Amino acid sequence: MFLKNTWYVAGWSHEITDTSLFSRTITGVPVVFWRDAQGRVAALPDRCSHRGAPLSRGRLEDGELRCMYHGVKFNCEGACTFVPGQERIPPGANLAPFPVVERNKWVWIWMGEAAKADPSLIPDTFWLDSPQWHYKPDCMHYDVNYLLIADNLLDFSHLPFVHEKTLGGSTEYANVRADVQHIDRGLRVERWFMDAEPAPFVKRVTNWTQNVDRWNMYDFILPGVFMMDSGSAPAGTGAREGNRVGAVQFRSAQALTPETENSTHYFFSQAHDFALDDPSVTDTVHASVVAGFKEDWDMIHAQAGILSLDPGFKMMPLNVDNALGYFRWLMGRSISAEQSLARAA
Amino acid sequence: MFLKNTWYVAGWSHEITDTSLFSRTITGVPVVFWRDAQGRVAALPDRCSHRGAPLSRGRLEDGELRCMYHGVKFNCEGACTFVPGQERIPPGANLAPFPVVERNKWVWIWMGEAAKADPSLIPDTFWLDSPQWHYKPDCMHYDVNYLLIADNLLDFSHLPFVHEKTLGGSTEYANVRADVQHIDRGLRVERWFMDAEPAPFVKRVTNWTQNVDRWNMYDFILPGVFMMDSGSAPAGTGAREGNRVGAVQFRSAQALTPETENSTHYFFSQAHDFALDDPSVTDTVHASVVAGFKEDWDMIHAQAGILSLDPGFKMMPLNVDNALGYFRWLMGRSISAEQSLARAA
Amino acid sequence: MFLKNTWYVAGWSHEITDTSLFSRTITGVPVVFWRDAQGRVAALPDRCSHRGAPLSRGRLEDGELRCMYHGVKFNCEGACTFVPGQERIPPGANLAPFPVVERNKWVWIWMGEAAKADPSLIPDTFWLDSPQWHYKPDCMHYDVNYLLIADNLLDFSHLPFVHEKTLGGSTEYANVRADVQHIDRGLRVERWFMDAEPAPFVKRVTNWTQNVDRWNMYDFILPGVFMMDSGSAPAGTGAREGNRVGAVQFRSAQALTPETENSTHYFFSQAHDFALDDPSVTDTVHASVVAGFKEDWDMIHAQAGILSLDPGFKMMPLNVDNALGYFRWLMGRSISAEQSLARAA
Repeated sequence: MFLKNTWYVAGWSHEITDTSLFSRTITGVPVVFWRDAQGRVAALPDRCSHRGAPLSRGRLEDGELRCMYHGVKFNCEGACTFVPGQERIPPGANLAPFPVVERNKWVWIWMGEAAKADPSLIPDTFWLDSPQWHYKPDCMHYDVNYLLIADNLLDFSHLPFVHEKTLGGSTEYANVRADVQHIDRGLRVERWFMDAEPAPFVKRVTNWTQNVDRWNMYDFILPGVFMMDSGSAPAGTGAREGNRVGAVQFRSAQALTPETENSTHYFFSQAHDFALDDPSVTDTVHASVVAGFKEDWDMIHAQAGILSLDPGFKMMPLNVDNALGYFRWLMGRSISAEQSLARAA
Repeated sequence: MFLKNTWYVAGWSHEITDTSLFSRTITGVPVVFWRDAQGRVAALPDRCSHRGAPLSRGRLEDGELRCMYHGVKFNCEGACTFVPGQERIPPGANLAPFPVVERNKWVWIWMGEAAKADPSLIPDTFWLDSPQWHYKPDCMHYDVNYLLIADNLLDFSHLPFVHEKTLGGSTEYANVRADVQHIDRGLRVERWFMDAEPAPFVKRVTNWTQNVDRWNMYDFILPGVFMMDSGSAPAGTGAREGNRVGAVQFRSAQALTPETENSTHYFFSQAHDFALDDPSVTDTVHASVVAGFKEDWDMIHAQAGILSLDPGFKMMPLNVDNALGYFRWLMGRSISAEQSLARAA
Repeated sequence: MFLKNTWYVAGWSHEITDTSLFSRTITGVPVVFWRDAQGRVAALPDRCSHRGAPLSRGRLEDGELRCMYHGVKFNCEGACTFVPGQERIPPGANLAPFPVVERNKWVWIWMGEAAKADPSLIPDTFWLDSPQWHYKPDCMHYDVNYLLIADNLLDFSHLPFVHEKTLGGSTEYANVRADVQHIDRGLRVERWFMDAEPAPFVKRVTNWTQNVDRWNMYDFILPGVFMMDSGSAPAGTGAREGNRVGAVQFRSAQALTPETENSTHYFFSQAHDFALDDPSVTDTVHASVVAGFKEDWDMIHAQAGILSLDPGFKMMPLNVDNALGYFRWLMGRSISAEQSLARAA
């Protein structure tokens, strides 16, 4: 069960070219992507209307896509332009293209009713396309349902345990109360950790030995887009009051895109606004994040393995789970509402 | 769902010997094969009547087969001749042998009611056992339902796309209308492609540079036996009117034998009647066919992967699909009729 | 379907330490084990009450177990002693510990109602902790239902076939009638094979060339504990009447512990009471048993593969199957009785 009328991140801009076909399954539906001569992204079902062959094994011919099983051709809008052995092209041969918007290096796709695809609903991740911020784009593949990863992103009390030696910090961090607000289609989470030792990954890029004030402020919105302003500043320099001079700041953009009920594409990036003339800092920041996300990957897959043994298990909500509890409720309500509308139509 | 009262190809003659046991699962039923002292093929369920151990892990003892779990023995006709620990052999210990006919290097098996096994129903593949034709026997294993492979064999419009550089030819080939006739238990398909460039695999054995007239004429009969007369002759030399002097001719024998609902044994051969004194031509012809069939294998597995994501997908019939559409209808009707009779009995 | 109110072997004593966590799934339930400072074995569900993370990926802290996802802590009795972000520990946070008894190098666990866990029900395997007997503890993992392995252990007519060159002996062995008695919660099987060639594995440790009298006497009790007194003595020296002077004697302790419906932990050992000053004899005896058990493993997995093709297959009981037939009946009745009681409660 997936939310359909919403924007999913389909991939990074650089993954889709005009010279080869790219395939990714999103909410259980295989999609083939390419660019036309003007660089616009085309997205069609990766399934030929004729006999179901994958179009991503096809061939680009003057901006059109030919299925290399029996030669059926489609243009960027999904209109069938050739079938073998007959002049007449049956109406059922056409494919419905998916609405696609490319913005700030992410390609967004709408898997639901095309008429409802409103680009103004796309979250603003401006720093992914700004000279003020440097980062390396990346993606991991999970063999678990996307909600288990959303849970992880919505509760940072796991940092000192899962990420003790990477993104973490002292055990006290887990006890810091996060401020959680409900916003449109999601949540805003703010967590300050004052006058504490810098996290290991911050030490690596700063060589700081003094204590810091550390913040994590993020929006998490449907269907699974995580946008975080985080950083650390020397303790007592007024970061909480708005002064970020002398601070190291990060902007994180992450997106969960369900592949199937049991697998997920996880797009991520961690941008920094300092030492922009030193690419090794970008590398180090990225490597720290990857190391931490591999720790999450290990834990979440292990958790999924345990959960698979007993579908009747009920999780026990703690106070730290208020954000993820609200998100799961919001997701469930949104899916139900969408399905009710679909049944009524 | 399989047709049971029909002859399936169980294997090539050389696969079954009197020195070792051979196992193959056919229509979901494991079968063990061997030869008796007279060279006759025995075929029994590959499942001991006692506790279900595979008899193919057993031992041949004077033409009888001993299960190597607890020592139960069977003769070629499936009669149990020994059980451990008691003199009396229970009637339930006997196994029902499968009717088997060996003909033209193929071993045919009947998985249904033995009383209905009529050898005259076996298709004639005489060239598999004729000095006028040379070939190499071969077999591939597919992890897809056999109907997807039958579809492929029944529509040659895929040749210029799947097999562009191997068995194919120009894109025009896909537009040639095939003549399709209904025959007893199947179809006869005839396709002529006049005055065109030779296919890559024909060039390799002829060095022809001139255009050719090319034909593919085949019978495809239940449950999945493909017998083709094909070839190419210099254009305008009257091949279509019956003159095959100067032509290169091929006889293909192929058979689809379902292993399970999702896997298939695919037996094949491509015989030629020219250059019989040059074994390298046999090797080249065979290698060309294998290269082409691997292209089919890749495409059909990819297609099956896409189809598995959405069981509700309906294929869109084109004119080129009339042969395969009829075959699927005929297969469905035959299975229904067989099952109705079985229920009535 | 498993019997729950019974003692299962959870592992060998040496597998569980006070320095690391040990996980094993038993009757479909993941369990985490460790030892406290006093060396007592703790056994809790290997699933954090909070969000289901595996506790076996956690950390031991002063004898308590901390979940390394969000930091929740448990003591040896399963009481939750810490949750992140709040003072109050919800009652649902506690875990129910499994009753555990360590005896004779085996750790026994009770997966059912703790109040019914009566240590006096644990079978006596004294030789596993006696200086008079030497052995090497071992374990194999099967990907089959435990009943197929119980079948194997309850019918030694397979010895001359599966184990022809290892544990076996002449084919005549299969015809020896075993004496089978019903005992409390199981069976007692006794089988004598008089004046015959020694089994291959006995030859290896004795160099005997004369014939022997050979015995196998074992109890097999619910849920799958096999305890065997076996041996061979020079033929005619009165072993059957009780004289074991000059004999080689073995004590075998084996236990089947279901992991899931389709997988099983198989603990085993083969102790000997001769040549105690020669460790190479212990190695040889153990290697012989392992070689034989690998033969069983191969055959039983092959059998399970055949059985999986047709759930409707009915095994055909022979006289040699009377012990395993009774055991399957007893197991079925015990599970039914337990489930009736559970429904009534």
